[in-house]
Amino acid sequence: MGATYLGEGRCRFRVWAPYADTVALHIVAPEDRIVPLNRAPRGYYEAVVSTVPPGSRYFYLLDGKKERPDPASRYQPEGVHGPSAVVDLTRQPWPDERWPGHPQEELIFYELHVGTFTPEGTFQAIIPYLPELAALGITAVELMPVAQFPGSRNWGYDGVYPFAVQNTYGGPHALRQFVAACHQQGLSVFLDVVYNHLGPEGNYLGDFGPYFTDRYQTPWGRAINFDGPGSDEVRRFFIENALYWVTEFAVDGLRLDAVHAIFDQSARHFLEELAASVRQAAAKRGRRVYLIAESDLNNARLIRPLVVGGYGLDAQWSDDFHHALHALLTGEANGYYRDFGQVEHLAKAFRCGFVYTGEYSAYRERRHGGATELCAPKQFVVFAQNHDQVGNRALGERLSTLVSFPALKLAAGVVLLSPFLPLIFMGEEYGETAPFQYFTSHTAPELAAAVVKGRRAEFARFGWAAVPDPQDEATFRRSRLHREQLQEDQPRALFAFYRELIRLRRTLPPLTNPSWEQMAVTAFEHERVLLVR
Amino acid sequence: MGATYLGEGRCRFRVWAPYADTVALHIVAPEDRIVPLNRAPRGYYEAVVSTVPPGSRYFYLLDGKKERPDPASRYQPEGVHGPSAVVDLTRQPWPDERWPGHPQEELIFYELHVGTFTPEGTFQAIIPYLPELAALGITAVELMPVAQFPGSRNWGYDGVYPFAVQNTYGGPHALRQFVAACHQQGLSVFLDVVYNHLGPEGNYLGDFGPYFTDRYQTPWGRAINFDGPGSDEVRRFFIENALYWVTEFAVDGLRLDAVHAIFDQSARHFLEELAASVRQAAAKRGRRVYLIAESDLNNARLIRPLVVGGYGLDAQWSDDFHHALHALLTGEANGYYRDFGQVEHLAKAFRCGFVYTGEYSAYRERRHGGATELCAPKQFVVFAQNHDQVGNRALGERLSTLVSFPALKLAAGVVLLSPFLPLIFMGEEYGETAPFQYFTSHTAPELAAAVVKGRRAEFARFGWAAVPDPQDEATFRRSRLHREQLQEDQPRALFAFYRELIRLRRTLPPLTNPSWEQMAVTAFEHERVLLVR
Repeated sequence: MGATYLGEGRCRFRVWAPYADTVALHIVAPEDRIVPLNRAPRGYYEAVVSTVPPGSRYFYLLDGKKERPDPASRYQPEGVHGPSAVVDLTRQPWPDERWPGHPQEELIFYELHVGTFTPEGTFQAIIPYLPELAALGITAVELMPVAQFPGSRNWGYDGVYPFAVQNTYGGPHALRQFVAACHQQGLSVFLDVVYNHLGPEGNYLGDFGPYFTDRYQTPWGRAINFDGPGSDEVRRFFIENALYWVTEFAVDGLRLDAVHAIFDQSARHFLEELAASVRQAAAKRGRRVYLIAESDLNNARLIRPLVVGGYGLDAQWSDDFHHALHALLTGEANGYYRDFGQVEHLAKAFRCGFVYTGEYSAYRERRHGGATELCAPKQFVVFAQNHDQVGNRALGERLSTLVSFPALKLAAGVVLLSPFLPLIFMGEEYGETAPFQYFTSHTAPELAAAVVKGRRAEFARFGWAAVPDPQDEATFRRSRLHREQLQEDQPRALFAFYRELIRLRRTLPPLTNPSWEQMAVTAFEHERVLLVR
Repeated sequence: MGATYLGEGRCRFRVWAPYADTVALHIVAPEDRIVPLNRAPRGYYEAVVSTVPPGSRYFYLLDGKKERPDPASRYQPEGVHGPSAVVDLTRQPWPDERWPGHPQEELIFYELHVGTFTPEGTFQAIIPYLPELAALGITAVELMPVAQFPGSRNWGYDGVYPFAVQNTYGGPHALRQFVAACHQQGLSVFLDVVYNHLGPEGNYLGDFGPYFTDRYQTPWGRAINFDGPGSDEVRRFFIENALYWVTEFAVDGLRLDAVHAIFDQSARHFLEELAASVRQAAAKRGRRVYLIAESDLNNARLIRPLVVGGYGLDAQWSDDFHHALHALLTGEANGYYRDFGQVEHLAKAFRCGFVYTGEYSAYRERRHGGATELCAPKQFVVFAQNHDQVGNRALGERLSTLVSFPALKLAAGVVLLSPFLPLIFMGEEYGETAPFQYFTSHTAPELAAAVVKGRRAEFARFGWAAVPDPQDEATFRRSRLHREQLQEDQPRALFAFYRELIRLRRTLPPLTNPSWEQMAVTAFEHERVLLVR
């Protein structure tokens, strides 16, 4: 799907637009012209067009009336409302076909937001820091979503062009360079992809076909149509997206955002089909590619193999582990933390991956989760901080500003010496003190107002004045890292402590690939001690 | 839940009403009085009350304002808007504890609508016909839903009191008598239960607690809350309902209506929990109780065992088998029949239970269904007619008025000699010619008008004048059986043919418990012949 550059100025355009009776290509640069597309089966329109060199800009013209960017646009140089651009990735040499990747149990993630990691906020600007990250010992950089979002400041979950790498981050060529640079440093690259909704601004997919459905509700926008009429093509759109990152960008894995909002009742769940497709494409290239779900369901079916009715994903995040640890460290008991707070909770997380495996949750007002039999510890990703757990606080405070320095070290130890796959949120390794706040840069005025209002309502209990304005550029700037802090004693000590823990994890035999059978976990509630052997 | 009679005028009332701050019992007969209930954990209210003999009538009074019947009412003698009544089932002798039931492969269903089987429209009036049904050879009577619905005429899918046996059918005592009479004739009893929605009239459950959710949409009304806050209690309500039929009425199985509209994302699906609960209760009484799903999903997960990730139901309906057969017999190709019409479709149904196991469906505009590995033929219920396939035609025509007499015999042979569990729709066995039309008897005027309008819109392509008025009592009367037709030659011959086919099915070794491994199915498209060996 999208515009596939064939060389010598020729390009194949292919778009799924069953709602349209006619679709034409409106090339707006380098030279303005309109080329009708041919109707193909199942609502597709396509044509091979000449004299469209890479960089050409175009819209699709639906029924001669609506001019829209390409849903599968590879690049939106002028943002979400502007024309799509033809991209030629073949021009860029791809040096690391022999990159071996990492076995699953060796993955140590470093979650990174491109916009705030450096003052420049680009892929390019991160590259000089990669040796430092490699020295820390992490093995995988996990990028927060890079699909084109409105404006220049966004966490990434408002993306509306799943195939287009954010223009302000540097676009597709810059991402490819970044992946190559990571691989050269021995670092895997994971991409956070959002297949459960699209952002509210610049989302024109509904003009093309039944991408969305009203049968299900998501908290963030219309649910994607994974099981209704036309869903074969919608599924294909997102599966091709996953394959695009794997085959064109050589990413080592995908983090699937909030899969509990991927509603699919069909006999073969979208995630099962996605996993099979990605596995096949990766095998063809002799590589392993990992699929890791974020899920609010505590359902091990996601990561169980197909033969026992699972979807066959590789791993999933354990928010429970975080909440158990966070509640112990901070004593916080509001919101979802009310379900946690005892050492036994953390012990349960160590024993099962989740804390709630069918028990009643007071916060959720229902039983929550299921058993994790037939799963291995390396199928759970754990963390003391991540973008959500920091950023979804009203003020976006990092753990470094909530607990003592020794507590930070304790948290690092619990996560990095756990039997699970650890994830570090950028800056955590030296105790970054800047907040990571919720920021957006919507250009549609009514949306901008709605985002501010929504954010204030969400945290009404804190008093609205306290909630930073997501649209204010200052909120974004405040959220930038200050890696210069690493020159100071305490940050440097913490960095060294993280590095040492990672070294231990990677070298001590009991930590390199632990199994639950070899572990004994005991909670001493009164002494506030957790013993893991 | 509900009013449990304890003997000597004492009764325990228990209701889940988390939306209410106070709940009182308003006894309206035999003597008017108000008794406050005590708050129990998780939103329950309860009390043991004296001097409430069986037959006492009551409402619940929510917050001193709203007077409502009991959601778990055992009996609504005055209909859906009237008071609930205390029922004492222990007074009724229960003679057939030694009833052995039937092994699954011996089940031959006879789907029966109580209101139209006899002119009286009661359980009582059916009993004299049971010997005739037993002589036919069927082994299980499957009652269309008997939960209290508005008015006196309804298919049963507008029920609003899942525990209350329809008053105009004779109420709970009459159902118990009916089950006993069936068992005495060697007939199992299955009950059609609706756990995916409640009817639109007399539905007061939303005043008590979060029984419903807006997260999902059903075609018939608000989706039931199986996975949100408070869902433990909602699940318990429906599971207790299933157990009520099993333990108090000794039913042999439940037919679960339209489970594709039971939306549940939790780690343990409601159907899985239901199956485990029913199995446990049945085992305690040394019996087998079957759970058979109607499902539009063609998903074998429903009927696979737990160890391979299934929900553990016993069987499911195969609409595909019906559609393949019906399209061949009638040549109809509109609506969902467009996906069928070739002998190969029926052959596939014989080979797999479903026709669509992942193939593209033109009608659904997407791939449909999944493989049925690890399932046995006896896990699929098949039919040439049923209440839906007859009644959801604009005019409710039975197959007897659509195809020739030899074609009726062919249909009977295909169904009754198939490796699956056959189901006969009442009257089919003698070629009943009366239609089975869609009828209701809503008392709320605006609802009545909406039903008529909706029905006409559904069949607009036939011209609205042709669609019978569901509210018109004549529509109901037209749908009654005329078993006196059995005195005529052709009906008698068809009945004898059905009886002989059933005898063959029950005695010929290859038909008594067939497996797919022993079958060979070949379609000869040109000759319109299906060969099954």
